[in-house]
Amino acid sequence: MPEDAVTLQGVLADRDAWSTANCPVGRSMELIGTRSAMLLMREAYYGTTRFDDFARRVGVTEAVAAARLRELTEAGLLRREPYREPGQRTRHEYRLTDMGRDLAPVVLGLYQWGVKYLAGGRPMPRLRHADCGSDVHVTVTCAEGHDVPLREVDVEPARRPSL
Amino acid sequence: MPEDAVTLQGVLADRDAWSTANCPVGRSMELIGTRSAMLLMREAYYGTTRFDDFARRVGVTEAVAAARLRELTEAGLLRREPYREPGQRTRHEYRLTDMGRDLAPVVLGLYQWGVKYLAGGRPMPRLRHADCGSDVHVTVTCAEGHDVPLREVDVEPARRPSL
Repeated sequence: MPEDAVTLQGVLADRDAWSTANCPVGRSMELIGTRSAMLLMREAYYGTTRFDDFARRVGVTEAVAAARLRELTEAGLLRREPYREPGQRTRHEYRLTDMGRDLAPVVLGLYQWGVKYLAGGRPMPRLRHADCGSDVHVTVTCAEGHDVPLREVDVEPARRPSL
Repeated sequence: MPEDAVTLQGVLADRDAWSTANCPVGRSMELIGTRSAMLLMREAYYGTTRFDDFARRVGVTEAVAAARLRELTEAGLLRREPYREPGQRTRHEYRLTDMGRDLAPVVLGLYQWGVKYLAGGRPMPRLRHADCGSDVHVTVTCAEGHDVPLREVDVEPARRPSL
């Protein structure tokens, strides 16, 4: 067992005795595991709400933007709301839901990792906490506030609901 | 501007004045933005090191597993090391590098989000800190230890290196 792995507890210890078919990582990637979906979420975090802005800034065709925004809306990460500017027909904009906001650790985690390993020395924008000015990080911690490296993560089998 | 967005500071405030071509989120997704790549990293975190185990547990063909493991190795998330069992020919196993380990917040973040939104009420394995027993979470915090919601994130333009 490599020193860097998590520890699979109880019935999970025998990795051949259980299936990963329902793994939440796999299910999440089925939903948002495309570059364009992740970049559309990034844009939503930047404050983009309008279809044309999403398509242009992510650099995808209108057809791709429309398909992906529809998927993200149907999945519940965005909600579609009507708006109307004077003299124009009613259009729709896309707003973050709680489900969409809660993906922030993943998107900011990709940002942080990309800055560290893929920026090739180019200076990159820094994320700071508006209230105190210190650097923002995505971290794996426990409820007691300890930093938790992989080797200190125990994966505990789900408890079956009991009657 | 939606209340949930980050704040783009300085020259970044005019979103049409800069390109997202070098965005670290996009670069990261180019490298690891497939379901199979993310699931292979999950398997590495579970302690899987051997080709057959990766392919079987992720549920992909050997051709897909080979291609994806090669990409992850070339990109630097895994390293390939020879091993030999008695009476067998030399084979290779795949070990996590620092770059691979540092992706943990993203993979565990997908896990956490999937448990919350996509598990459909099924009980899911719990992640606990081996040392203190409390729940493990992926969070966005600042160096001062504050939780940082999106609306409190300032994105500051990169400083150009000066002579």
